[in-house]
Amino acid sequence: MNRQQLIDTIRTKKSFLCVGLDTDIKKMPQHLQGETDAIFKFNKAIIDATLPYAVAYKPNLAFYEAAGIEGLVQLKKTMDYLNGLDDKVFTIADAKRGDIGNTSQQYAKAFLDPAGDFNFDSMTIAPYMGEDSVTPFTVYDGKWVILLALTSNKGAFDFQFIKTEYDDCNLFEKVLQKSQQWGTPDNMMYVVGATKANMLTTVRNIVPNSFLLVPGVGAQGGSLAEVCKYGLNKDCGLLVNSSRGIIYASNGEDFAQRAAEEAQKLQLQMAEELKKIF
Amino acid sequence: MNRQQLIDTIRTKKSFLCVGLDTDIKKMPQHLQGETDAIFKFNKAIIDATLPYAVAYKPNLAFYEAAGIEGLVQLKKTMDYLNGLDDKVFTIADAKRGDIGNTSQQYAKAFLDPAGDFNFDSMTIAPYMGEDSVTPFTVYDGKWVILLALTSNKGAFDFQFIKTEYDDCNLFEKVLQKSQQWGTPDNMMYVVGATKANMLTTVRNIVPNSFLLVPGVGAQGGSLAEVCKYGLNKDCGLLVNSSRGIIYASNGEDFAQRAAEEAQKLQLQMAEELKKIF
Repeated sequence: MNRQQLIDTIRTKKSFLCVGLDTDIKKMPQHLQGETDAIFKFNKAIIDATLPYAVAYKPNLAFYEAAGIEGLVQLKKTMDYLNGLDDKVFTIADAKRGDIGNTSQQYAKAFLDPAGDFNFDSMTIAPYMGEDSVTPFTVYDGKWVILLALTSNKGAFDFQFIKTEYDDCNLFEKVLQKSQQWGTPDNMMYVVGATKANMLTTVRNIVPNSFLLVPGVGAQGGSLAEVCKYGLNKDCGLLVNSSRGIIYASNGEDFAQRAAEEAQKLQLQMAEELKKIF
Repeated sequence: MNRQQLIDTIRTKKSFLCVGLDTDIKKMPQHLQGETDAIFKFNKAIIDATLPYAVAYKPNLAFYEAAGIEGLVQLKKTMDYLNGLDDKVFTIADAKRGDIGNTSQQYAKAFLDPAGDFNFDSMTIAPYMGEDSVTPFTVYDGKWVILLALTSNKGAFDFQFIKTEYDDCNLFEKVLQKSQQWGTPDNMMYVVGATKANMLTTVRNIVPNSFLLVPGVGAQGGSLAEVCKYGLNKDCGLLVNSSRGIIYASNGEDFAQRAAEEAQKLQLQMAEELKKIF
């Protein structure tokens, strides 16, 4: 899905909600746990229920890998289902990969290649290893790198805010600046945590036109209003993710309906925010 | 495998060689390519041939993921084989993972849990997300985090050498310093690229007792003699990796024998170096 298609989807659905499919078999409703394809069945129910309210889905690969090879089979089924929807959505492999050039090429092939098992639209990438670890993810047409800039966790303060010697900027600002040479707003987004919404002004000064993937709304405590205040640009420019707040809203038989309700709550707020720009 | 067992293995084999199993189906010998379980068969032949000369094996996950779910099946077969050897070896998931705490827990479960599909001894982790992204990998008994400090690629210069404002140190030095609080030389190693061997003096000043995983000897141009000069400590303290230089030494029917020859060449140099300390 390219930039214009993403913006059109956001306009049409009046939403920039991304649903994080951090599917943990231990946290899913009891009645599903014994079934075959339990992870896929859970994901499908969540997707079907939240589809009117969401423009993107983000499986976090850790949760599938933790279930072993069978977990990856469930991820493939989920991706086949998402890629087959008439109502097109943007898909994100939350993988946080990155390695030397020839190895990053292999990761790109694994997750972005249309001929591969997964065929995601985008994947999250860690910046520590620099340019040649990132650029292999920009070569697939209509596919995206989502580079970690400022993450939503406590550990973000360990390195991302380190002041660098020159030009009084933090490491995460350096990442934003330098990576401008590696991609464009058509193939590169950034992760900026909602728990640090006040930093979005700094981020927007460096990358005014880029889409930002914003995790941390909900369970991690970030505020949607704050994120919009500092993060919205003329094309929206935001994908706001909620994972646990939606997919584990209930662990009873009503889990999908409750997920839909939580997704709709966020979508309604988003529709209000979008009135300011569209 | 714990620290003492690793040191004992190094002493016994007179080697600190790690063989990188970056197995790319396109680069393996023609005669294997059409076969079922081709990746595993290739790996098994390489392992059998190099086992007298190597103490560690490091599958790079990107290459398996690039082959889709079937690639992960081949990785599992490889790990079952490695874990079943009488001649115990140290295994490294070259995965370069790292995410917020609850997600890193899932990655740790995926690759380190003895009850999981893979049961590696260790895995490589990217430091950008800080403490809570790293510590979940230190909780399994006798298992290790291998944290990226200074990588062997060109992109290492983009951020790892950034001078930080305080105490005149680079980002990679900050990573080494700060992470001392997150683990010990019994459960944490560091990646330090052989292409930057002269920086090993700086590294050793900060982490005198830690094991270092050193990639980049061979195909990437690093020198074993230089690495030993600056990196050896009283317990050896090094695992030196060679991937392409060994596993693709030939792509003919003699590939395993040629791999053994290349591994032995390195082992003989290592044995000489070890005479200086043991």
